[in-house]
Amino acid sequence: MLIYGKNVAKEILKNGKLVYKIMIEENFNDKEINSLIEKQNIKVEHLNKKEFSKFAKFSHQGIILDIEEFSYTELESFLDIEDAKILILDHLEDPHNLGAIIRTCEAAGFSGLILPKDRSVEINGVVMKTSAGALENIAISQVTNLRDAMKKLKENGFWIVGTDMENCTDYREIDYSGKIAIVIGNEGSGISELIKKECDFIASIPMYGKTSSLNASVSAAIIVYEAIRNRK
Amino acid sequence: MLIYGKNVAKEILKNGKLVYKIMIEENFNDKEINSLIEKQNIKVEHLNKKEFSKFAKFSHQGIILDIEEFSYTELESFLDIEDAKILILDHLEDPHNLGAIIRTCEAAGFSGLILPKDRSVEINGVVMKTSAGALENIAISQVTNLRDAMKKLKENGFWIVGTDMENCTDYREIDYSGKIAIVIGNEGSGISELIKKECDFIASIPMYGKTSSLNASVSAAIIVYEAIRNRK
Repeated sequence: MLIYGKNVAKEILKNGKLVYKIMIEENFNDKEINSLIEKQNIKVEHLNKKEFSKFAKFSHQGIILDIEEFSYTELESFLDIEDAKILILDHLEDPHNLGAIIRTCEAAGFSGLILPKDRSVEINGVVMKTSAGALENIAISQVTNLRDAMKKLKENGFWIVGTDMENCTDYREIDYSGKIAIVIGNEGSGISELIKKECDFIASIPMYGKTSSLNASVSAAIIVYEAIRNRK
Repeated sequence: MLIYGKNVAKEILKNGKLVYKIMIEENFNDKEINSLIEKQNIKVEHLNKKEFSKFAKFSHQGIILDIEEFSYTELESFLDIEDAKILILDHLEDPHNLGAIIRTCEAAGFSGLILPKDRSVEINGVVMKTSAGALENIAISQVTNLRDAMKKLKENGFWIVGTDMENCTDYREIDYSGKIAIVIGNEGSGISELIKKECDFIASIPMYGKTSSLNASVSAAIIVYEAIRNRK
């Protein structure tokens, strides 16, 4: 997978992750990175400005790394964790949101995240960059069928808390003790009806202005921190 | 200021904001937008793919609007609001963060935000798009000197809550009743020392993983919602 930009490049070069290839723009001159590259036996391609222009939307800062794919965790590994806290993402689309959510979950000490395989953002370079390193320290499971995964969680003692914008249970009134999986919906359409049916509670965050919804990573953060509120 | 993309274009064309000019890519064919444009007497420029390519990083979806600049509010307008809740941004850099923070503050019923004039992100098209319309419904003040602004707030009965990552007061233990201004720092360096000295409390969000900091819009959201926790 392709990773863009200096900070994330430094992190990867320092922590010994498998790098297949590095692409560098002709006038790139970050001394620290150049010295890190020299120390390792990595293939470097020097590209000119024009060749780099096709990556313009990734804020690459003149450096792109091609690294090994992210390795997902099996769903089963979550089932027996005591008081596990998990976040389920129902077809999230924006990699910036996913990166920020991964960072929040890792900081909050969550056990992991679950993503569906289809119609969902995957772990890519933008996610890795936005997660600011957190991706390396949290388990993420990718499942074929989100409903089946939720059923399996419930069979193993999880309570599932969905989220919605309408007048549901105030997110502060839910008991988050024990094994909990929180579901965050798609940025535009929220949680799908089929997924909602599998939830034990639907939590909503009260809103007092004219805004009809919060950013997905913001909603996730507010509920994730509520779920660990009583943690010592 | 330039505004990119279909959703925000629709919103602007519907709510009658002053549009100086619209730039449209040659193969653009959104019927709703085309009909909205036809109804109004706005200058339209048709550009080809190549001319549009310089805006590639803004995910423009083939449409760019040049609209009137954002109009800031005077700091004084915040001073007499009963139980006012304000967010101060100490040299935030990322327009996506600012947009998400504006959306959160508006949803939480905050009275407004304060930004410094220099070395800070300003209200631009990306901020407007990320705020998802919230920008139109909240007051934002731009001040020359953040410390002077904080002093003025304190003279008028505000308590100022800074935020930091280290072992300060747990954000859940602070009394947010009355007039409160919360300060969120720069994405990389946090709140500057001079600004920290003007704060009455420094709040921190506990973290339980290896991540050393949260995304700025995530920290802001967690503290903003804590500040209105007891609101009916």
